[in-house]
Parts: sequence; structure tokens; C-alpha cells
Amino acid sequence: MSERSSEAAGPTGLPFDDIRRLVAQMPGPDEKAVAAIRARDAELTKPPGSLGRLEALVEWLAAWQGSTRPMVERPLVAIFAASHGVTARGISAFPDSVNRQMLDNFSAGGAAINQLCAAYGLGLKVFDLAIDQPTPDISAEAALSEPACAATMAYGMEAIAGGIDLLCVGEMGIGNTTIAAAIYHALYGGQPQDWVGPGTGLDHEGVRRKAQVIGEAVALHRAGDGDPLEVLRRLGGREVAAIAGAILAARHQRVPVILDGFVTTAAAAVLHAMDARALDHCLAAHCSAEPAHVEVLRRLNKTPLLDLGMRLGEGSGAAIAAGIVKGALACWRDMATFESAGVATKGT
Amino acid sequence: MSERSSEAAGPTGLPFDDIRRLVAQMPGPDEKAVAAIRARDAELTKPPGSLGRLEALVEWLAAWQGSTRPMVERPLVAIFAASHGVTARGISAFPDSVNRQMLDNFSAGGAAINQLCAAYGLGLKVFDLAIDQPTPDISAEAALSEPACAATMAYGMEAIAGGIDLLCVGEMGIGNTTIAAAIYHALYGGQPQDWVGPGTGLDHEGVRRKAQVIGEAVALHRAGDGDPLEVLRRLGGREVAAIAGAILAARHQRVPVILDGFVTTAAAAVLHAMDARALDHCLAAHCSAEPAHVEVLRRLNKTPLLDLGMRLGEGSGAAIAAGIVKGALACWRDMATFESAGVATKGT
Repeated sequence: MSERSSEAAGPTGLPFDDIRRLVAQMPGPDEKAVAAIRARDAELTKPPGSLGRLEALVEWLAAWQGSTRPMVERPLVAIFAASHGVTARGISAFPDSVNRQMLDNFSAGGAAINQLCAAYGLGLKVFDLAIDQPTPDISAEAALSEPACAATMAYGMEAIAGGIDLLCVGEMGIGNTTIAAAIYHALYGGQPQDWVGPGTGLDHEGVRRKAQVIGEAVALHRAGDGDPLEVLRRLGGREVAAIAGAILAARHQRVPVILDGFVTTAAAAVLHAMDARALDHCLAAHCSAEPAHVEVLRRLNKTPLLDLGMRLGEGSGAAIAAGIVKGALACWRDMATFESAGVATKGT
Repeated sequence: MSERSSEAAGPTGLPFDDIRRLVAQMPGPDEKAVAAIRARDAELTKPPGSLGRLEALVEWLAAWQGSTRPMVERPLVAIFAASHGVTARGISAFPDSVNRQMLDNFSAGGAAINQLCAAYGLGLKVFDLAIDQPTPDISAEAALSEPACAATMAYGMEAIAGGIDLLCVGEMGIGNTTIAAAIYHALYGGQPQDWVGPGTGLDHEGVRRKAQVIGEAVALHRAGDGDPLEVLRRLGGREVAAIAGAILAARHQRVPVILDGFVTTAAAAVLHAMDARALDHCLAAHCSAEPAHVEVLRRLNKTPLLDLGMRLGEGSGAAIAAGIVKGALACWRDMATFESAGVATKGT
């Protein structure tokens, strides 16, 4: 169930130019596959359009798997876990020690995501991005060097190898809603308080402190000087970089992606800032209870599948969405047609 | 998978007074069970509240199963199917012949709900409420006599026997969005066009005609003279009456209920009009694409779990919601606690 690397990304990662080239070379959707999905859908024993968004989910699978027979036989929830020096600023309700403890909990099968993966038949891999070596406090220095950032993205790219057909990306890392909020503030401007929320359970004073820290960090790093990859490098963290790599690699490997919540979406937002088409293969699983998520999703032009007030991370929202995708695909794949079932069609 | 009765409800049903007594005697929630759920939830390895509505779903199961160890081991999707003479007025995009054909399709495993039940591990029973004997055109006469209406409700009550622990109610019947809209218009007033929509796919002129028919029916039957059971009896149809019986019986038998869409909710609305507490054990699965459903759910004080633009019926939305309920319960039941996993708690 679990896969770990106790090493951080090494010094031999791709330079940012290679990342930029991968973004520029992203494949588009398979429109012929979508047409094939629609043609069969029109023959199924139901009123046209009556399965609503379930129908769109199957088209999305086909478009990005590049297949007229989309499958969800090897879905994977990938959790990327990292530690953040910015927790020294008192921006989380939980202590750093939870990071290692939660990795052990994932391995032992005791976390929420373990139960959801079991319930919906999803594979689970947990990637340890040097959990015992926090990135520096971003209000004092950059989270990563360029080689380390690019190597961490490359690690995320490799993490999805192995023939999966649907990728749910999630994360774990005490303090990482602060990282995500800093990335949003750097990418989208506004005020720090526009992007912060209680995370795992900060009180009002904690949220105020979090906004202060984010303001300092974004000012120190000059909002990445307008370069989304510099935003990612300077504000970090490793799980965000790895997720960005995983999303990008999935596009090239024709694996549709389900984005989890507030932190995962920050990785997606970096790619989207590089190219507005970069998330076309991604489904937003849900709207997080973290207050700024709704505005982020609006900017990414994503309508979340679910709105359940969740704010756990771990890919938990993405896992529930994957369960719905499986149901949608089962309908398209296994329903009878009007002809095969001898059911009269509309207007006959 | 399928269970049928080719007989309509017989002449020996309960009189309405017995129905009223069952409504008056509904048990309330088990607050001690809810407290036990919350106590364990607070110990699970996640920030308090971070599973959002999933947590509330487990509390709901416990409250209405009356158990500190809620289960979803024998969930059932019950589809009630009936025919409607009002289709003679040209208010559906599909012909009446579809009713029998869809029953055969359910039996053969070819409908959408068959796939969703397989995907989420739900039992399925289909109840044939005299599908070959349509109730009369409600714009000309009452759908049912009092004995027939009460007997059909009693049939719905018996349909859920057999030790189930979660009931998803759904329906199938060409023309039954017209029946449901008439019930809403009778219960809630306003204009006929406030409650009608395209159903399985009516065009603009068809929707206009549907509103006309509903206006005639509600006027003819004097909106049930203000008695919700008379609204049900006069405007029918049999599937709506049976669903109302099933919802009521589930309450007495401590089985939580997931309501499907626009037509199922009409049965629920009749009970709600009798007693505002009558749906406290019911979860609204989703907001249908049928336009008036959102207003109906608002009047019932129900926040739907999903909003996927579905409008199929068959219990399809309820089945997807049941899949989420199973995931929610798996988290509560199987997650590690902070103590068992050795994870530090908030603020430590």
C-alpha cells in the first residue's frame, strides 16, 4: 500500500527549461474518443442527458485516456508528504511530529484515505519527500533551489509510473495550507488574508498570524518575479512540486487526474499559470472548506464535483470523486441499449 | 435482484386514519447514539471536523438506526414502478410502452441503476405496482380510491421488510414528473408552471401543455382540500403512494432513508406536509436537473448531498449517495485513533 523514499529529490533533476518544454508539448484531448463515447451514450436505455455530469465524466476519461473504451481498472491515490520550516512561525494547529506519525498511520492502514481506498477499490501509494528534513521557513528564505525543485517535480513524474489509468493526487504535511495560500497570493495578488483560512483548525489569532507570515514570504520572494515556477521554487514545498510534476506527467502519459483540495490545487495552479490548458485533463474533486478554495477553483475554471465541507487532504475528496467516476463508467460500459433491451426511444 | 407483484394493492389496505396514526407515532432520533459517534469521531486521526459532511452522515445513520455501531451491510435500492393515464394528455417525451420494457430491463440487469448497485454493493428490488393498469388521467378523475391508496402505501411498507439497514428509494413510470409536479402545486400553491419541467425531455410546447394539465388536475381535485393524504390519493400515482409508505415504515423500523430525485421527493413532501418531522430520517441524495426540485428541497429544509445535474430516477442519485455513505462509515468505523496510532493531537 505504501511506497517511500527517505531521500529528498537529488541534485540531478531537470532544469526548469525542461519543465517548460514539457508544458509546451502537452497533448490535447482525443476528440474522436469523445465522439465515440457520445454515440454509445445516445443508445443507452435512459433519456438523453439524464445522467447529467456522470456522462461528462466518461467523456473526460475517454478524452484524456485517448481511448474509445475508457477504463478505471488501476486507479491510484498518490499522497505526497513533506515538512515545512514555516511551522516555526506558529501557523498550524498541529505539531510537526504529526508528519512522521501520519506516514506510519498510512502504512498501518489507519488513516481516512486507507478506508476510502478500500471502500472504492483504489490503489494507494504514499511518497515521503524527506519528511524529516523540512524545507526552510519561507518567510526567511526560499524553500528550494532550482535543481531541487526540478528534481522534486521529476520525482513526482516518476511516481505515477506503472500503468495506472486514473490518478488521484493528494498530500499531507503540517503547515502546507500556509504554503498553498502563499502560492495563491503570489500568483493571484490581492491581500494575504484573501487566501488564508483555519487549515487543520487555527483560531482567529492563528489565521491572522498566518496571513502575516504569507505577506512576509510573498514580499521577500517578490511573488516569484512573475514566473510560476519561481513561485513554486521559492514558496515550496516539496509535496507541491512533486504534485505539479505528477499532474504534468499524467497529461503526457494519458492518465486523467482528480485533484483533491486546497493544497493539491496550489500545485495545479502553478501549472495553470504557465499554460491555461495545463489542467484540461484534471477534474476538481470537491470544494474544500478552506475558504479561499472556491475562488481558486473559479480562477481555474473548474466546477468541483462535490461540496461536502471536507478539509482533510490525503486525497480524501479525490477518492470519493473516483468512486463516482467508477459508477459513471459502469453505467456507460454496462448498460443495455434501446435496441438490445427492446426499449422504445423518445417520441416513438 | 428483482421482485415483482403483478397485482396492484388489494382492497384490504389500511384506512387513512391508520396512516395518520403511524405518522403521529414516529420515533425520534437516538441522541445517545449520536453522542457516541461524536465521541469516537473526536479520537480519530484527523483534525476535528475535517471530514465535513461525511461525519454528519455517520451521525445520521446512528441517530436513525438507533445504534452506536451503525452498519451498512444490507443496503437496498427499492424502485417502485407504475403507469399513469395522464400520459394521454401528451405530457411525456417517451411512450407508455417503456414502462413494461424498463421493468424487463431492470430484471435483465441493463439499466443504469443495475450498474450503480453493482458498483457500490447495493441490493436492488423492483416493485411492479400494476404497471399494465395505469391509474386514471388525473385531469379527469382521482388517481386512487382511499382503500387503494392506503393499500398501496401498505404495500410500500411491506416492501422494505427483510432486515435492511439503509433504504434508497427510487421510481420509474412514464409521466410521473407530471404527477409529482401536480402534488407540489397542490401542496405549495403558486402557479402550475412553477413546478413543471422537461422531465425525460419535453420541448417548450410540451412543458407548457404539462403546466396546463397540472393546473386542471389540481383545480379539479381542489388541491386535496388541504389534506396531504387526499393530495396523494387524488393526484397519485401508485409509486408515489408506495414510496410514502416505505419512507414511513422505514422510520418505524429504524432504517435511514436516502431520497432520490424529483418524483421520490413528492412522496416525501406528502409526509412532510402531514408532520414536519416526518423526513428527519431522510437524506436528500441530490438536486435533480428538474428545475423545481431545488425549491422543493428548500421547503423540506433538506440540503442535497450531490448536485450532478441528474434527472433519471430509478434511485440512481440515491445509489451514488449510498456509495458516499459507505465511504463515510468506513472512515468512522475503521480509522485509527490518535492513541492507537500514536499520533499527536491538536495543540500538543
